[in-house]
Amino acid sequence: MNSLQFTAESSSNGMRERDFTVGGVPGVLWSPASGTAGRAPLVLMGHGGGADKKHRAMVGRAHRLVTGCGFHAAVIDAPGHGDRPRSAQDEQEIAELRRAQTAGEPERPIIVRYNARLAELAVPEYRATLDALQELPEIGAEGPVGYVGIAMGTAIGVPLVAAEPRITAAVFGMMWHDALLEAAKRITVPVEFTMQWDNERVSRESSLALYDAFASREKSLHANTGRHVGMPMFEVDSSVRFFARHLLGRAGTSPA
Amino acid sequence: MNSLQFTAESSSNGMRERDFTVGGVPGVLWSPASGTAGRAPLVLMGHGGGADKKHRAMVGRAHRLVTGCGFHAAVIDAPGHGDRPRSAQDEQEIAELRRAQTAGEPERPIIVRYNARLAELAVPEYRATLDALQELPEIGAEGPVGYVGIAMGTAIGVPLVAAEPRITAAVFGMMWHDALLEAAKRITVPVEFTMQWDNERVSRESSLALYDAFASREKSLHANTGRHVGMPMFEVDSSVRFFARHLLGRAGTSPA
Repeated sequence: MNSLQFTAESSSNGMRERDFTVGGVPGVLWSPASGTAGRAPLVLMGHGGGADKKHRAMVGRAHRLVTGCGFHAAVIDAPGHGDRPRSAQDEQEIAELRRAQTAGEPERPIIVRYNARLAELAVPEYRATLDALQELPEIGAEGPVGYVGIAMGTAIGVPLVAAEPRITAAVFGMMWHDALLEAAKRITVPVEFTMQWDNERVSRESSLALYDAFASREKSLHANTGRHVGMPMFEVDSSVRFFARHLLGRAGTSPA
Repeated sequence: MNSLQFTAESSSNGMRERDFTVGGVPGVLWSPASGTAGRAPLVLMGHGGGADKKHRAMVGRAHRLVTGCGFHAAVIDAPGHGDRPRSAQDEQEIAELRRAQTAGEPERPIIVRYNARLAELAVPEYRATLDALQELPEIGAEGPVGYVGIAMGTAIGVPLVAAEPRITAAVFGMMWHDALLEAAKRITVPVEFTMQWDNERVSRESSLALYDAFASREKSLHANTGRHVGMPMFEVDSSVRFFARHLLGRAGTSPA
């Protein structure tokens, strides 16, 4: 077992923030500052490519989950991201990606391959992190667990959720379907899927194909006008409501 | 001018309900039972085919808009629906539709043609109704106006919103794009568009084509698993938030 070690702690804005490591992988756990009466659901998060565990998108999502629902939210640095060293292979993939982008060549095959390799490393890291976090009395091994990750967070999250039965609801979006189709077909938990209708990086067809592949009885597609970086803030609020419906067991669906 | 005549009034569940006619067309106006301090936005609604102004879907939407946001909500019977007589042509179209459905033949061309004819009649009726409702001191001519209509309510609503500059936000969904494409291309106001991913009546491709056609800078597509009759209740709540954002001028979008 890789045990959890807390390395720093602070509090602000209604959130308690604890940096941790599990098996050498650095992460952060956000919890209600006031403490909770009992156990509360955990939402695992995955950051985007080139970002890290404390990117403002992570802090912002965590804040809504923690202060809006009383949840715990946790994220770890992906391999080669944040406080983790880049391998020679990471450097090589990133150089190739930059070269393709500069030359105006398709980035899709590079991103798909690079993200698939990161996911292979990250999935067992997330599962070990979940093992360790569930040892905490305020989370526990019985509570519901969600996952949210956009772009690279989806490249890691789809195989993670396919492999991890403890995760019972997931929010994805904005990643090519190429390497994810088979894992998506094994996912049956509720999914909320976000896409940008005019995404200049991930094609509309690829996004619709990935959404279509999930075997979930309940899945929602949210498409909004705009480019890759431009997802409306109300989608973050929507994902929080999604987790409230599924992790708190609130009634939410019935025929209109 | 067709003036508004109130024909009945009651109150329940936090809503004041007033039946009215405008130029012989019967409608209903729901408003906050407590009255409002000043003027409040109006949401026009369009009912589905075979339904009428007091269908539970209309009452349910009105209740959320009125008690959740303090809005007024109004709907009129479509031609040949509710308290309005069916013409010989209505009877003929409906008989043909039933025949096709029984024979397992495509209903699409019949529904598209029938709904397009109803829309031609209904659009001026909605505009006259809006003229008359805006004479009421609690609504007024300056306030923002929304429109929500699914299925036949979309067949009428798309040409209505394209023609009517007073409507500044609209919720649509679940209607073939065939007769609506040109009108949709003239719509620039914010749109929320609902579809059922496994709709056995309106094809996925047709729904996506209609969503794609709106010229709106801000438009959101919400797709959910399930068949034509099975839209999740949380989409009704979503449409209420959509109107709150756009008719109350609340901040709602910024890069995530």
